Amino acid sequence: MSFQAVKGTRDFYPDAMRLRNWITDAWRRVSLRNGFEEYDSPIFEYLDLFAAKSGPEIAEQLFSFTDRGGRNLAIRPEITPALARMVNARINALPRPIKWFSVPRLCRAENPQKGRLREFFQWNIDIIGEDSPLADAECVFVAIDALRELGLTAGEVAVRYSSRALTSRVLAAVGVTAADVPAVLAVLDKRAKVPEEAFAEMLAKAVPDGQARQAILRFLQIDNPTGISADQLAGLVGIQADPEIVAAQRDLERFARGLEDFGVADWCRYDANVVRGLAYYTGIVYEVFDRDQSLRAVAGGGRYDNLLEVLGGPKVGGTGFGMGDVVLGILLEERGKLPADLRNPRLDFFVVEGSQGQLDKVLKVVGVLRRAGLSADFSYKSQPLGKQLKEANRRGAASAVIVKQDVVTVKNLSSGDQQDRPLAEFLDKPM
Amino acid sequence: MSFQAVKGTRDFYPDAMRLRNWITDAWRRVSLRNGFEEYDSPIFEYLDLFAAKSGPEIAEQLFSFTDRGGRNLAIRPEITPALARMVNARINALPRPIKWFSVPRLCRAENPQKGRLREFFQWNIDIIGEDSPLADAECVFVAIDALRELGLTAGEVAVRYSSRALTSRVLAAVGVTAADVPAVLAVLDKRAKVPEEAFAEMLAKAVPDGQARQAILRFLQIDNPTGISADQLAGLVGIQADPEIVAAQRDLERFARGLEDFGVADWCRYDANVVRGLAYYTGIVYEVFDRDQSLRAVAGGGRYDNLLEVLGGPKVGGTGFGMGDVVLGILLEERGKLPADLRNPRLDFFVVEGSQGQLDKVLKVVGVLRRAGLSADFSYKSQPLGKQLKEANRRGAASAVIVKQDVVTVKNLSSGDQQDRPLAEFLDKPM
Repeated sequence: MSFQAVKGTRDFYPDAMRLRNWITDAWRRVSLRNGFEEYDSPIFEYLDLFAAKSGPEIAEQLFSFTDRGGRNLAIRPEITPALARMVNARINALPRPIKWFSVPRLCRAENPQKGRLREFFQWNIDIIGEDSPLADAECVFVAIDALRELGLTAGEVAVRYSSRALTSRVLAAVGVTAADVPAVLAVLDKRAKVPEEAFAEMLAKAVPDGQARQAILRFLQIDNPTGISADQLAGLVGIQADPEIVAAQRDLERFARGLEDFGVADWCRYDANVVRGLAYYTGIVYEVFDRDQSLRAVAGGGRYDNLLEVLGGPKVGGTGFGMGDVVLGILLEERGKLPADLRNPRLDFFVVEGSQGQLDKVLKVVGVLRRAGLSADFSYKSQPLGKQLKEANRRGAASAVIVKQDVVTVKNLSSGDQQDRPLAEFLDKPM
Repeated sequence: MSFQAVKGTRDFYPDAMRLRNWITDAWRRVSLRNGFEEYDSPIFEYLDLFAAKSGPEIAEQLFSFTDRGGRNLAIRPEITPALARMVNARINALPRPIKWFSVPRLCRAENPQKGRLREFFQWNIDIIGEDSPLADAECVFVAIDALRELGLTAGEVAVRYSSRALTSRVLAAVGVTAADVPAVLAVLDKRAKVPEEAFAEMLAKAVPDGQARQAILRFLQIDNPTGISADQLAGLVGIQADPEIVAAQRDLERFARGLEDFGVADWCRYDANVVRGLAYYTGIVYEVFDRDQSLRAVAGGGRYDNLLEVLGGPKVGGTGFGMGDVVLGILLEERGKLPADLRNPRLDFFVVEGSQGQLDKVLKVVGVLRRAGLSADFSYKSQPLGKQLKEANRRGAASAVIVKQDVVTVKNLSSGDQQDRPLAEFLDKPM
């Protein structure tokens, strides 16, 4: 009889756990310094909550179950529905903007692939109740702040953004009906992922009119829609500017200027092919990829102005992103960013029995050190001094405390420096 | 349409999350300084793993499901089976003793009651591969180290311990058959939880022989089985000492002396009524309760020498405990131990637009502060100075940075002290 973890899940042995903590601690530290407060939701919810956000077909991608009370429940595949549920429940009591983050454990019933597991951790940053595109720019800043914190540079990862509002409006202006817009956006989303011919074929199917298709391709070629007037922008596509195009362009401009002011413009560039698969985005959207785009997205997000309403709340907009630990972990490893000291545990002190029969004093010293907030360990059994010092090294101890009759020797294990102190004095005041 | 969390689960709004983090951070800090390394397992496992440890009836207490691959899975109700699985998988590669901790999220399909929820967090401390009772004593020290770290005292919580090895051997010696020992232990476990008469009745049913019952009651009255010889101990019960009793008593003595040396003996006392419900304990067992015993157990644990073997590994023993967040949280709140500053968020700086049209400079200042590792926030929209300073206070900012044309004023919001600095200089070197 031998048991294993379920395929697509991970056992976190201490070395893997140190890596996970190194990433999640950075996410938390960055969130707090950017003014976000942490929240969390239960690991399972009513299945209906996920279906209300994503449609009933989401059930296929969930680990769902019926409990003994007959409730249809599911393990959360994302935290956004719970976020909307929680905010809706206290919408009048919560001061806005609501700036919240979370690092939930999520599960999806998918086939495991490189960068995609059945269980993973995802950093979520959201700002709710603030319409300014500066909030969107701030979210991008926060994502970059974390990537930089973990050692990545603008040469290694890039943020590509666009405006779903602008793209949708351009599609409408070239003749795509409102009902067809989602399908066309889905085709655009595929552009970077499929060969050019396959894309042309998909687009031809979604937009049968050749002139409309040409206009869309002209729009996709625009490098920077914010350095020009709305009329110029519309002219490049071959349509007329209207108030919606003007507003979307203005928001995009404010967003881009925010990135400049925050000092992260060099990490970011406009790319109309970015539309994000999820149907619920309504404004600026963005994705973070490694520069080679050899991996899946490191992060993705954008503005969602209808989600709270869809889940039974008021029409209050939000913006935010998710960044998973799996692709990020692969990227950090491939780029050699994992700190060497993550490999080994560390201790402040390893307390050694310096002569036989002193184990009781070793325990006293260990107890006193730990109570003083210092990390300390020891061997449960009497062992030769050399063996104990070897163990001290294996455990990554900075110093050894060698306990003899009435004296302790504190020895720095890297420099070799050592100092004797009376045991009684040490027990009274270890540091 | 209004969605709610499933009964027995919790939404962690930021104030509740700060409390949860305050507890779990203390657990982690204490674990590390006691020389434990963190690990984690997946949120779900094969149902068989839990059944192998606890018997097929455990399925009733689990949230279980069948995935699309036909696998029978369950959300983990405890982490110990996964711990044993993980250790077994690398038993020859892992240096011993294995000192590991975890703070898993766990779920049990129970009816929610005070102190018992369907989803909770549980600190787990385990030492595997070390037979010395000092390892058991160290685990108790670690539990107390955390309780003390969270502000509790020996007057508020108590550890009661006993030796399941000693109790089992005494039961055998008075004539309880090996097959009946678990049932009798289960009766002893109930003693503190039911009226005296009910206990007498249960015991009479489990041990029909009156003389054996009297001997058991004499054993339960022994205050301290370690201050006397094995013959004296046996004499108090009315049985003969044998090698197993001698060994169990010696282990108990070494354990108690370890508690003395670690400096925590005043938190602990022997109590033969403590047997722990779980069948898998084999040696010293213990429970932590509030002194009034008005709440459920805060923590419980002990030695388990067969678990790894039961789960397909070698016969390597372990010892450890679990401490849940729910009862502990209630106790800390009832005893007034929650730090006042958990109620509110905190920021190092709130950056204020000191005159109109400076929002771009506000963003620059915010970006520079955050990149320097300081927490900083601002208002997305231009607002009157007074309103911005009010927001700074609400957000718990230590200082305000008021940005004017080319100057920033850094104002300490508690003392009122303030200092002007040229903007360019501040952007170059904020601190």
